[in-house]
Amino acid sequence: MASAPAQASVSEPLIGKLAVYGVGLIGGSFALALKAAAGVGKVVGQGRSRANLDLALQAGAIDAVAHDDRDAVADADMVLLAMPVGQMAPVMQRIAPWLGARTVVTDAGSTKRDVVALAREHLHASLTRFVPAHPIAGAEKSGAGAARADLFRERHLILTPVADTDPHALALVRRAWEMAGMRVSSMDPQRHDEVLAAVSHLPHVLSYALVHELAGREDAERLFALAAGGFRDFTRIAGSSPEMWRDICVSNRDLILHELGHYRTELDRLAALLHEGDGPGLERLFDAARAARNRWLQMR
Amino acid sequence: MASAPAQASVSEPLIGKLAVYGVGLIGGSFALALKAAAGVGKVVGQGRSRANLDLALQAGAIDAVAHDDRDAVADADMVLLAMPVGQMAPVMQRIAPWLGARTVVTDAGSTKRDVVALAREHLHASLTRFVPAHPIAGAEKSGAGAARADLFRERHLILTPVADTDPHALALVRRAWEMAGMRVSSMDPQRHDEVLAAVSHLPHVLSYALVHELAGREDAERLFALAAGGFRDFTRIAGSSPEMWRDICVSNRDLILHELGHYRTELDRLAALLHEGDGPGLERLFDAARAARNRWLQMR
Repeated sequence: MASAPAQASVSEPLIGKLAVYGVGLIGGSFALALKAAAGVGKVVGQGRSRANLDLALQAGAIDAVAHDDRDAVADADMVLLAMPVGQMAPVMQRIAPWLGARTVVTDAGSTKRDVVALAREHLHASLTRFVPAHPIAGAEKSGAGAARADLFRERHLILTPVADTDPHALALVRRAWEMAGMRVSSMDPQRHDEVLAAVSHLPHVLSYALVHELAGREDAERLFALAAGGFRDFTRIAGSSPEMWRDICVSNRDLILHELGHYRTELDRLAALLHEGDGPGLERLFDAARAARNRWLQMR
Repeated sequence: MASAPAQASVSEPLIGKLAVYGVGLIGGSFALALKAAAGVGKVVGQGRSRANLDLALQAGAIDAVAHDDRDAVADADMVLLAMPVGQMAPVMQRIAPWLGARTVVTDAGSTKRDVVALAREHLHASLTRFVPAHPIAGAEKSGAGAARADLFRERHLILTPVADTDPHALALVRRAWEMAGMRVSSMDPQRHDEVLAAVSHLPHVLSYALVHELAGREDAERLFALAAGGFRDFTRIAGSSPEMWRDICVSNRDLILHELGHYRTELDRLAALLHEGDGPGLERLFDAARAARNRWLQMR
């Protein structure tokens, strides 16, 4: 356009074309955030559900639904894999033959050892341009309808690059998530999976377990009728996507079982204090927990 | 005053004088709620902490600090005992000699078998006018500074009267809590303690346990640094008053241990699914939990 200001061609977006596989809460929010920051030219989407892709179109998260995998990724600057980890392998297999020679691939999977292993198995020539990443943000809601441009603001993104990850690809992915508002840090995939097992996977499992156990009782309805705000907050994460958490649990089960073991030992200690009616011991434990949580809240 | 409208003397408040022992979140909010509903004439407070009583005065929850127990309760229409359950016995002992012949006593304790037993032991002639009650409302905050008039709105109050509870006393307490906005129901003390062990006491213990276990590790700070919103909600109740939860746990420990046993059996099931990497089994469990929680949210 003749009337376009001169700087329009100077400030090209960071990513000319982005392809998002799995345009749900995470994929949709990433696209919206980059668009809000003028960090992307065109976004195309691919996914299992046409209804969800239509939602993403309506929300402006994607500009088009790609005709096929070649159309989606051959000329893309970046491909984001944002589906549950259990869908990662077939999608990598499908896109690998069509990935452009400079296309950077990244993911938003909640577990990283498995994704790195799958990339090694399936991405072939594009492996060095694969940047494993995990944006630690989410909600119990899922789907494109829940996506929003500010989902990632001030949240943590963890990169888990491996020895042969291309530094330019790594820098591009880091920059893109920073544009989306995230605080980016790096660690190795094993450490990532250990940390997340402790502070995310275990609490989810514990929350699902409590609701499931109560829901199975004959008097469940009368029990739930008297549950209050504490119960609501404790169980909020039991409203999370069962499919996503199935995949996380299967993938990271060794480390989750390890954490569950620690937790059961703690419950043994607590049960002993209860058996003994040890008021001072219980108060010390509760007080230490509250103090630690308050320190954490101030740190955030 | 000559100019006062005629109906001023007709619409006398439900409670002429209310004495609140323990002017914290619950006691302070009860007073504020009754005042907002024009349900109380004068409110006097008593408590362990002069600073907290001053806060309650500043917030308008109480009109005066009682000089002593006789001054507080001799001419009171209602006395609310709103301190942690562990303080209940000494306060009952102190007030019993001074309670007026028509004074109704009620409490806001989180456990009811123990409070009923203490009343039998300590309230003597006033026992029939003691109405055990539990307003199921709260927050991780405590103290008079956190009190607010709408804390109880649409929340559940459980009355646990016994065979010899005076029906007029029961009706007065019911009416007062209804004025504060609560939905009032009744059950026996044993059933109350069973239900609360399942939907309130157990989740609190589980939440404290998780934070305490993580906080005790060498790498606690790095773990907490990556904890996100799910962790925050799951552990909100670990910010609750250690003293209050010590008393609840000591008082209701048999039923909490019973619930903990159920929960550990559920964790056994979950651990087996994880060991086997049983994706469909995990998804079924998570799905059933999410569905039950969604039904509950719609019921509320």
